[in-house]
Amino acid sequence: MRALRVDDGTTSLADVPLPSSGGEALVRVTLSGICNTDLEIARGYAGFRGTIGHEFVGVVEDSGGGDIARGERVVGEINAGCGACERCERGDPRHCATRTVLGIVGRDGAHADVLRLPARNLVRVPEAVADEHAVFVEPLAAACGVLERCPIEAGTRVAVIGDGKLGLLCAMVLTAHGIAPLLVGKHDSKLALARARGIETSSVEDARKRGRPFDVVVEASGASSGFDLALDLLEPQGTLVLKSTFHGATPVDAARVVVDEIRVVGSRCGRFAPALELLARSSVEVGGLISEVLSLDRGVEAMRRAAAPGVLKVLLSMK
Amino acid sequence: MRALRVDDGTTSLADVPLPSSGGEALVRVTLSGICNTDLEIARGYAGFRGTIGHEFVGVVEDSGGGDIARGERVVGEINAGCGACERCERGDPRHCATRTVLGIVGRDGAHADVLRLPARNLVRVPEAVADEHAVFVEPLAAACGVLERCPIEAGTRVAVIGDGKLGLLCAMVLTAHGIAPLLVGKHDSKLALARARGIETSSVEDARKRGRPFDVVVEASGASSGFDLALDLLEPQGTLVLKSTFHGATPVDAARVVVDEIRVVGSRCGRFAPALELLARSSVEVGGLISEVLSLDRGVEAMRRAAAPGVLKVLLSMK
Repeated sequence: MRALRVDDGTTSLADVPLPSSGGEALVRVTLSGICNTDLEIARGYAGFRGTIGHEFVGVVEDSGGGDIARGERVVGEINAGCGACERCERGDPRHCATRTVLGIVGRDGAHADVLRLPARNLVRVPEAVADEHAVFVEPLAAACGVLERCPIEAGTRVAVIGDGKLGLLCAMVLTAHGIAPLLVGKHDSKLALARARGIETSSVEDARKRGRPFDVVVEASGASSGFDLALDLLEPQGTLVLKSTFHGATPVDAARVVVDEIRVVGSRCGRFAPALELLARSSVEVGGLISEVLSLDRGVEAMRRAAAPGVLKVLLSMK
Repeated sequence: MRALRVDDGTTSLADVPLPSSGGEALVRVTLSGICNTDLEIARGYAGFRGTIGHEFVGVVEDSGGGDIARGERVVGEINAGCGACERCERGDPRHCATRTVLGIVGRDGAHADVLRLPARNLVRVPEAVADEHAVFVEPLAAACGVLERCPIEAGTRVAVIGDGKLGLLCAMVLTAHGIAPLLVGKHDSKLALARARGIETSSVEDARKRGRPFDVVVEASGASSGFDLALDLLEPQGTLVLKSTFHGATPVDAARVVVDEIRVVGSRCGRFAPALELLARSSVEVGGLISEVLSLDRGVEAMRRAAAPGVLKVLLSMK
């Protein structure tokens, strides 16, 4: 089968054997999405070697002993826990110390014809949700994860920094929850997508001119400068939700965090159920974030295109 | 009167006019305490010029229209707000945008014969609390501030990093609240003070060997390396309470904060009432932290001694 693999700084499309079940479920991938994390991994982040990709929608090929039958349409949570530790027993493998993560840590990923995941990781896709939308469940769940880590009441003054995919999804999720965030970014074409969804937007310069009115700032720019900007926008005792994982050390003015008594909350993966519900209710419109759909055969090219300025989501089709 | 002043990187004892009331209270200082922040200010941190010092106990000389009469023994909260903004009206000037701070921001401080503060900042010292203990109220309140910003239940696994004054006080406050912290430090003579109060202690190396068992880590080492150590000790989704203000940018592995979904909580000043209550009930024993008491006449020397290795609290006596 085809698989888009990273090895020692090289990304290539390889012909690899079909995975065997080994007690887990097998999923024939329909569509996969290229995430910035894929681009970071291709640059050597996390030292991962293997098939990349962790956003997908597909069809069950082998149930792996789970209760979702062959032929059903699924998405899959990306953290595969040991199944035995305290966190796994609580039903949340996201912080299992020995977890593997689809296409990120110790487990081949979704930019391939077939992938393998524990049966308990799979989630049925409601009929109302098209493949082109379901493939957004993982990043949409990550955006929903902001509210899991930092519950926000309507009326709270919130800014989202970053007009890339993650920033847009965060702003859309907050809006769907009755919160009216200000989306701060550098690219007017991307900010326009937010405005079309009724979200207020601002340039970085104009946001700084507002003073420090925000109770919560979500940093989703992927740039370490976003941390400083967040501190410039936050009220004393405000909350900075960190979504971006950037490689290496970020210089942080920790004294400002102490003097202004800021709360910084790291947020990574979210649960799939709330994200699927938003899609099923059409509470967020993700289709507009698709820049291109390319065949997996053109996977290497697709990675380049995903890294180009102005591009949002690039999908890979396994057809 | 005498005043220990910092001007352009020079610390000197000066003879200055007595302050006039100007509608505020005047306090004749009995004892003041040298804080690491004083040492930082003397090195140029915060660009402050004037009389330093913000830890004191004294006797009211002019009530400034407040209800604490001349002759009463007082301590004083160090943040003086505008009195008119929303935060001040809520009775908490600690984050008033135009606040002055005793001996730190725009207001002469406590290493002097007489200081001035708004009458509303003064707090009576209960008879049961000796001057030598009352002078610890400000740093003890800062230690209590950990629990104000991050409520901690008994049974929570807590580590405190730093065996200096602030770290010891944090460990003592936690212990007084039924929490059994591990104090992690580099100086056995200081750790011994904690052990004498029933607090478990550890070297940095031995703490790292424990793995990552802590739900909460309080960083009070004053060194930016404390941030990394805290991340090494914290469980995923744990809380790092930042107490230290270090000058300049700290290199932080922000990706770890995101991937492990750490919560970082900045904590600065606390309220005086809970700290005075701990002293009045003898729930914390601060006297053992006094390394030396010097006359204000020897203020410049006292600052040098406070900066020496192994030294804890140096007090200045105005007698």
